[in-house]
Amino acid sequence: MTDVIKVAVLGAAGRMGTTVCAAVEAAPDLALVARVDATDDVAAALRDASADVVVDFTVPSATEANVHTALAAGAHVVVGTTGWTPERLERLEEALAALPGRGVLIAPNFGLSAVLAMTLAAKAARFFESAEVIELHHPDKVDAPSGTARHTAAAIAAARGAAGLGPSPDATESGFDARGADVDGVRVHAVRLRGLVAHEEVLLGNPGEQLVIRQDSFDRTSFMPGVLLAVRKVGGRPGLTVGLEHVMDLD
Amino acid sequence: MTDVIKVAVLGAAGRMGTTVCAAVEAAPDLALVARVDATDDVAAALRDASADVVVDFTVPSATEANVHTALAAGAHVVVGTTGWTPERLERLEEALAALPGRGVLIAPNFGLSAVLAMTLAAKAARFFESAEVIELHHPDKVDAPSGTARHTAAAIAAARGAAGLGPSPDATESGFDARGADVDGVRVHAVRLRGLVAHEEVLLGNPGEQLVIRQDSFDRTSFMPGVLLAVRKVGGRPGLTVGLEHVMDLD
Amino acid sequence: MTDVIKVAVLGAAGRMGTTVCAAVEAAPDLALVARVDATDDVAAALRDASADVVVDFTVPSATEANVHTALAAGAHVVVGTTGWTPERLERLEEALAALPGRGVLIAPNFGLSAVLAMTLAAKAARFFESAEVIELHHPDKVDAPSGTARHTAAAIAAARGAAGLGPSPDATESGFDARGADVDGVRVHAVRLRGLVAHEEVLLGNPGEQLVIRQDSFDRTSFMPGVLLAVRKVGGRPGLTVGLEHVMDLD
Amino acid sequence: MTDVIKVAVLGAAGRMGTTVCAAVEAAPDLALVARVDATDDVAAALRDASADVVVDFTVPSATEANVHTALAAGAHVVVGTTGWTPERLERLEEALAALPGRGVLIAPNFGLSAVLAMTLAAKAARFFESAEVIELHHPDKVDAPSGTARHTAAAIAAARGAAGLGPSPDATESGFDARGADVDGVRVHAVRLRGLVAHEEVLLGNPGEQLVIRQDSFDRTSFMPGVLLAVRKVGGRPGLTVGLEHVMDLD
Repeated sequence: MTDVIKVAVLGAAGRMGTTVCAAVEAAPDLALVARVDATDDVAAALRDASADVVVDFTVPSATEANVHTALAAGAHVVVGTTGWTPERLERLEEALAALPGRGVLIAPNFGLSAVLAMTLAAKAARFFESAEVIELHHPDKVDAPSGTARHTAAAIAAARGAAGLGPSPDATESGFDARGADVDGVRVHAVRLRGLVAHEEVLLGNPGEQLVIRQDSFDRTSFMPGVLLAVRKVGGRPGLTVGLEHVMDLD
Repeated sequence: MTDVIKVAVLGAAGRMGTTVCAAVEAAPDLALVARVDATDDVAAALRDASADVVVDFTVPSATEANVHTALAAGAHVVVGTTGWTPERLERLEEALAALPGRGVLIAPNFGLSAVLAMTLAAKAARFFESAEVIELHHPDKVDAPSGTARHTAAAIAAARGAAGLGPSPDATESGFDARGADVDGVRVHAVRLRGLVAHEEVLLGNPGEQLVIRQDSFDRTSFMPGVLLAVRKVGGRPGLTVGLEHVMDLD
Repeated sequence: MTDVIKVAVLGAAGRMGTTVCAAVEAAPDLALVARVDATDDVAAALRDASADVVVDFTVPSATEANVHTALAAGAHVVVGTTGWTPERLERLEEALAALPGRGVLIAPNFGLSAVLAMTLAAKAARFFESAEVIELHHPDKVDAPSGTARHTAAAIAAARGAAGLGPSPDATESGFDARGADVDGVRVHAVRLRGLVAHEEVLLGNPGEQLVIRQDSFDRTSFMPGVLLAVRKVGGRPGLTVGLEHVMDLD
Repeated sequence: MTDVIKVAVLGAAGRMGTTVCAAVEAAPDLALVARVDATDDVAAALRDASADVVVDFTVPSATEANVHTALAAGAHVVVGTTGWTPERLERLEEALAALPGRGVLIAPNFGLSAVLAMTLAAKAARFFESAEVIELHHPDKVDAPSGTARHTAAAIAAARGAAGLGPSPDATESGFDARGADVDGVRVHAVRLRGLVAHEEVLLGNPGEQLVIRQDSFDRTSFMPGVLLAVRKVGGRPGLTVGLEHVMDLD
């Protein structure tokens, strides 16, 4: 691809949107053609911009309409906003069925290290008798365990199930009052500590050996390489894709 | 001390006792003068041996009588057996009050790295806004969290209290189903993983910084330096001492 | 495969060989049909045993002849012995070209966690600006860095090169006297510490994020799942295979 | 001390100085009475301010004169500037000898976790056969190993020497080309990785066990608790003190 990709950013005044705009502007193969805010007319802004790819970092109440508007404007779409219920995803797939060649990529997490930790842990999980997950975050986080840790544990549980592994061995008779959860049979521990940002550790164990995959997200600039990767790849992947790992060629 | 210390081992046929006998025999400043087993007459064996120090690695039902017998035989005593209730400790202190100069050292853990992790974490705790503990063990362990982790968390909680620190910040609204416990306000997470033995990690956090103290016990030979240290030190510390840290000159 | 696989072990009296024999006997889908020692006539022993798979854990001076003898006896071969020079590998490939359907698997490392650490690190490496490797071993090890760490660093360097990444950023002006090496541009640090066995940590960094893949080998029982996997897979992979990762379906 | 401590900051417009001013203003027991910059007349500014404590975060060429000026103005002094050669320290001790009750605290590092890591590692070191240090920093750092890691290794070496321990065991025959150094017999490994800030790990090993003390400095706000501690303590510690650990009551 020798042409520059034209990118419009929705939610451009937000914290993530501002960072995305700066990253797009700094990339020689991308051009920022529109910064669209909450008060702007999205349809009008996109019509004028004729963007190749629209990036949505807005709010759950706006993201579905934004994506359909962007598709109507002829763009591929990268979505970092949460709130995509099964119903919304279904409506989006119907819309995409009528737009052959058009791609939408929705990613719950654009952190390369976070996506890799989850994907590589799932690949390794079937070789180990035991698996547990520790996630560590700043103490102002309201939910526990984190969504990323839940996704990771679910992916590990699925890989274990597919390999015919039963639950991890555990003779514990009592004592289950710590922060965290059992996700599909995989134990997730949630640490909250002042000074931390967002971190995850997957522990896999066999007799006499251990494999640990750990990832640290220290600040939001770490999401930019993943966002730019999505922008570059979404045009080559028609239909709906959920998860950055599917454009990372990890298989 | 230029003289060799004469050592008798009670429970000499057990797993720990066997290892202790070998360690005593290998130490140039110690002499093994008696190996006493469950079927032996402890009083008679100790009378013949005239040991300077008796080491007890027997069972909870025998240890109290053993210690009093050893004191009656004129020895100092090092105890690695569990089961010392407050009542037993009180009776022991009464007995020691009548035996000036005689010392008994009871240690819940002879692992130097484990004792150091607990002691150093307690020293550091008052400087940090947040504190949590992760303990990791093999999956055949029945109790959670481990006794060592409970001790560590209690020591951290006491240090925080003495420094006027309140509870660690925590905005978590729900999700407390993981293995572990709240010990005096300090969260303890318990990981169970095939391949591991006994490990503990203390995490202390402030804005922008973290201190982590981790200890790994890979096998029971790791307890021998602590047992030998206790044997060498107990004669110089009259009365009852609970905890190896008190003979480690850490202050 | 419903039939039991018949396995002969060469070097059966050695430390690894003994452990392998026990592991084969404990596996319901495998049958141990011969334990062959240094003083035995390998050809005669294998002729009698009619093994499906021969496992060689002998010595560098014997392994090449053993493998050709095993092939002549009609078996597939799994090799854990070192000493396979390019010349030996070339002669082996020539022999296998004349034996369609017959497989030989030579693995420098049967530890699943070690092989996974290397393979997953290589998969992840192209997404990160920086990569360094830390290996940690007991202090009686003579070589530094370890062969496994060298393999890992070389695999990371190859992946970085294929992705067009230059060297990791490094402003260091002086100070290169520590244990370790530069392997194809990837820095490898070698720690030697009493109490450790064999451990490796790969650190991958981007602005604001880090991915760490760590593996611990605590004792040699940890190699058995990898040996058994090789025994089960070698029959389905004709020709010469070097590296356990090729039968782990990691792509 | 119930009175508020009056604080003047030299180098108030610099990165550290600005952060110190904000931290002093936010502390209820401290009052910021002067912000002094490079272009200001330090003596005049301090005469007007009548500060109890002067904090110097300026440059190596200015710090010595600043400290003597602050002492002449009747204040205690906290110094975070580098460049204190033995000759400068000697002249300062002479000046302080004539000023009974006046204190100066010079700290190479105000990070509580960094100071604790060094101090606790030195306390623990005499109990272990092996000791090595790993420091990890961003790749724009010019020197290796870091000053903090050199201090830590030197403190460990001193503690080992005082306890009669020889060098850590090491059978390595070759391979010393990695980033880092041998500091008084303690090996220091230096990792440089994009995404990291400033981190240090001390590894202590015995047969069958390991103690790891790790500290992470994620940003410069982490130095403020240490600076404020120094401000509060310097008045109670007459004479010259080098190192924050001496006012942390760690013994």
